[in-house]
Amino acid sequence: MLKDQAMSDYTQDSPDGKAPAIVLVAPQLGENIGAAARAMLNCGLTDLRLVSPRDGWPNAKAEAMSSGALAKMPPVQVFDSTAAAIADCSLVLATTARPRDMVKHVYTPRGAMDALRPRTAEGETTALLFGGERSGLHNDDVALAHGVVTVPLNPAFSSLNLGQAVLLLAYEWIMSGDKTAPAQLVTGDSPPAPHEKLEELMIRLENDLAERHFFRSDDMRPSMVRNIRSLLTRTNMTAQEVQTFHGMISALTGKKNPRRSGD
Amino acid sequence: MLKDQAMSDYTQDSPDGKAPAIVLVAPQLGENIGAAARAMLNCGLTDLRLVSPRDGWPNAKAEAMSSGALAKMPPVQVFDSTAAAIADCSLVLATTARPRDMVKHVYTPRGAMDALRPRTAEGETTALLFGGERSGLHNDDVALAHGVVTVPLNPAFSSLNLGQAVLLLAYEWIMSGDKTAPAQLVTGDSPPAPHEKLEELMIRLENDLAERHFFRSDDMRPSMVRNIRSLLTRTNMTAQEVQTFHGMISALTGKKNPRRSGD
Repeated sequence: MLKDQAMSDYTQDSPDGKAPAIVLVAPQLGENIGAAARAMLNCGLTDLRLVSPRDGWPNAKAEAMSSGALAKMPPVQVFDSTAAAIADCSLVLATTARPRDMVKHVYTPRGAMDALRPRTAEGETTALLFGGERSGLHNDDVALAHGVVTVPLNPAFSSLNLGQAVLLLAYEWIMSGDKTAPAQLVTGDSPPAPHEKLEELMIRLENDLAERHFFRSDDMRPSMVRNIRSLLTRTNMTAQEVQTFHGMISALTGKKNPRRSGD
Repeated sequence: MLKDQAMSDYTQDSPDGKAPAIVLVAPQLGENIGAAARAMLNCGLTDLRLVSPRDGWPNAKAEAMSSGALAKMPPVQVFDSTAAAIADCSLVLATTARPRDMVKHVYTPRGAMDALRPRTAEGETTALLFGGERSGLHNDDVALAHGVVTVPLNPAFSSLNLGQAVLLLAYEWIMSGDKTAPAQLVTGDSPPAPHEKLEELMIRLENDLAERHFFRSDDMRPSMVRNIRSLLTRTNMTAQEVQTFHGMISALTGKKNPRRSGD
């Protein structure tokens, strides 16, 4: 179940799909544990550890809120202390919104992944600690961690729900290994048109417009043509869209494309 | 209330704190609208618009789940159609997990902010569209948008709760304007020690260790000293920590720091 192909695609740069453990210290509401599990699996994380969950474990509300995630993950491990929960971890970062009276490396979520991913990829067991709903992590738990992660939110309203805090860190984890282009034109079955197709469309359009006295004067024509070209070129039309545009012109003029049949 | 100083700190690169509107199309559960509002205010967004919310508006469950966010934001606007909700918007991106049979620019959340932030900073009204819980955005809504945002999640478990989807986009918005260092050593009141303080500590430690025959041979001493230096230098000790370290050595040897009094 863990070795599901689609998931290992997302963790292929770590040996055997290794990813940080998520450790919830003294969580109170099963709903939040379930939301955390769902967010984890959304982002390819599957090692959930609980320290002294208030309502015990397993928890029916957690299972319901996880939308099936808990059933797809290996069994949640439960511990009596934070130290026991991270006993096998060689790099541990604690999430906390509050500055503490301790000398610590403080990371943004993105910066934390720059620290965690190469170590995790080397095969080390790493972990992210989250405190309970009421008061977050105890200073003694923060002291156990090699560094602190703080999300730079709106300082006037910075309190995050536990499930949401787990989501943000899990999201930065998956993004730190993701290669999706930040922006791309998705064209489906029809590829973007080569220039000659757009050129043919532009010349036809210009001729049809000229015949109908669209260009107010010969002086204005070149700049008007450039403006129309800019508009149409910016769309990066597909071959199919060029055909559709020819069809629209044919419909509006009642005249087929002189260079082609069937439009 | 909107002009709260701490918030405008986060939006200072946009005139009058402009940020994208969040448009929820046909949302069903008040809880999710409230969670979305909380996530928005966490990230400095305050323009929430609803298209045909199933249970009407206002909604007590939304208010409870927002943890006070809705009370701190300007009134939510409710519309009958998506077109009406985005009537004043000149750049609209639709969030959807599914590839559609449309030729569209597709952005990651981070890539979307590269598109949205400069336009928003110019004073344009921009928006992010989110579909309802059951089936997401209708193709007709997606067609209204200038581009699509897709979160590259675990393909085997990619379904995000509505509130969590809003959180991820809102988080990328605030991060796209945030200048927090990805990693920094936070030392509180005591500054990092200058090299001479660490040098003095190292020389004292080396002498105390040599007196007690810690170095097995003169041959091994230089490399053992280098290893201890590497360990202690890596910590980038504060001045206070150097003092604490001197105190620990004094306690262990029963001998004060010969270069200083009071340790």
